[in-house]
Amino acid sequence: MKERPVRPQYFADIRRQLALLRSSFSPDGRPIIGLVPTMGDLHAGHAALMERARAECDTVVVSIFVNPIQFDRRDDYEAYAIDLEKDVDFCATLGVDFVFAPSAQEMYPEPPSTFVEVAGFSAHLCGKFRPGHFRGVTTVVAKLFNIIAPDKAYFGEKDAQQLAVVERMVADLNMPVEIIAVPTVREPDGLALSSRNKRLTPQERAIAPALYGALEIGADCIRQGCTSATQVRRAALAHLRRHPELRVEYLEVVDASSMTPVETIGGPVCIATAAWLGAVRLIDNVLIDNIGT
Amino acid sequence: MKERPVRPQYFADIRRQLALLRSSFSPDGRPIIGLVPTMGDLHAGHAALMERARAECDTVVVSIFVNPIQFDRRDDYEAYAIDLEKDVDFCATLGVDFVFAPSAQEMYPEPPSTFVEVAGFSAHLCGKFRPGHFRGVTTVVAKLFNIIAPDKAYFGEKDAQQLAVVERMVADLNMPVEIIAVPTVREPDGLALSSRNKRLTPQERAIAPALYGALEIGADCIRQGCTSATQVRRAALAHLRRHPELRVEYLEVVDASSMTPVETIGGPVCIATAAWLGAVRLIDNVLIDNIGT
Repeated sequence: MKERPVRPQYFADIRRQLALLRSSFSPDGRPIIGLVPTMGDLHAGHAALMERARAECDTVVVSIFVNPIQFDRRDDYEAYAIDLEKDVDFCATLGVDFVFAPSAQEMYPEPPSTFVEVAGFSAHLCGKFRPGHFRGVTTVVAKLFNIIAPDKAYFGEKDAQQLAVVERMVADLNMPVEIIAVPTVREPDGLALSSRNKRLTPQERAIAPALYGALEIGADCIRQGCTSATQVRRAALAHLRRHPELRVEYLEVVDASSMTPVETIGGPVCIATAAWLGAVRLIDNVLIDNIGT
Repeated sequence: MKERPVRPQYFADIRRQLALLRSSFSPDGRPIIGLVPTMGDLHAGHAALMERARAECDTVVVSIFVNPIQFDRRDDYEAYAIDLEKDVDFCATLGVDFVFAPSAQEMYPEPPSTFVEVAGFSAHLCGKFRPGHFRGVTTVVAKLFNIIAPDKAYFGEKDAQQLAVVERMVADLNMPVEIIAVPTVREPDGLALSSRNKRLTPQERAIAPALYGALEIGADCIRQGCTSATQVRRAALAHLRRHPELRVEYLEVVDASSMTPVETIGGPVCIATAAWLGAVRLIDNVLIDNIGT
């Protein structure tokens, strides 16, 4: 158990606290600072990020901020009502050192006029269906990196396109941070953990694992030697037709690093999907990186 | 004179050198690092930036990089042929500690796909006439800040719109750097120093100071109580009509912080202009900030 209780840190505090911390180490033993950016409503998927950060870093910072500029739908934004006290307790049990929980007013004192944008990510997958989403993500992640100055930052593989866009931004802009990808955490029935899952009705929750089931069927096709993305998609989508309640937004076979669709599978690929179930949008993906081995 | 000769630093080196330097200070006596971003071809205007940095910082880094993505015209980019050895010697005489002179290949190993853009700066002044220019400036400045991690960065007031766009980027993205504005350095006849001045023919060079002359006539109008931007512009442009060789691109009275045109002058304003003289584009501006005092 930690001796020092975790308290949520607000804007002006966090930089001062981290500066104090940095100066308390000897010059050649600078602390490694890890950042886990979240939108709160923490679950075991976030815990996996925090545990990895705890194992690799001297100081772990969790940010909790529901970033208005990455939402394309107001109802989705408003559904992210977070219980900060509960989230802070959750962080404390995982040995987190600092929770940075700024207000929207602190993060955007004026309507934001500066954006960080990675070209080429708005044409496919979530980028295509959520206009402005990734621009909002990269902008707020750039801000968080500038505020916290982490050495490492932890992102879940569940949000595969987000991970790819952040990695690209970091490389292109020479940001002095290492991005660590953490595998997706799933329920026993395969459903990827998400804060949105709790918005599902019991009936929808029973259907939801079919999404991962479809991805696994597609992955099996590839593992068995199929190199046609069209055939892989067909097999996966056939599985989903048994569940008409799942309204598929996209299901694509994409190159694992660029996240752009491929037709012939010849290297590491990701099968990525988004589907609506009632009022809830779910995303998931599987990585198949041992092609031909 | 410096004991340690200044050598140009390339990409991988500079971060290591600065990390070594930071760790050589005691934890509570971290060095203040100042960055002077330049495109080389250094002159007394740059010297003013370096002198200010030298006076305020423990370590002064000058970057020399002709940034291809901020040029809207290929001929202008190609005219920036720099003599690195000469520029490094110039830096050495001013007590600069490091010259960071990356290649374009190092700065952009792949065609850049990530851009930092400040909205609202493309509608006026240089932003209007040089499409993509400020996006290129903010993107490369963000990269330089991430590579060098300066505490302070020095920009000339001559490039007033650039200064405003960088200040806005730093505020919006919470970049941990202080922007220091340094007054324009002028020739005895008023011409603002610029690397482009040497491309003027002797005849053009004799005419060029008329640009500053026009700005001063406009500024005098304001100092004498004129509050109509239209009248100020008319007075300044009348002066330029004596020199038809100067082809005015814009001459505007703008708000000194937002750099957007005003009609009625009631607070600090800037009169900003760009004009072509032969094949050379010159810019200049004057700040009038003591309105009504």
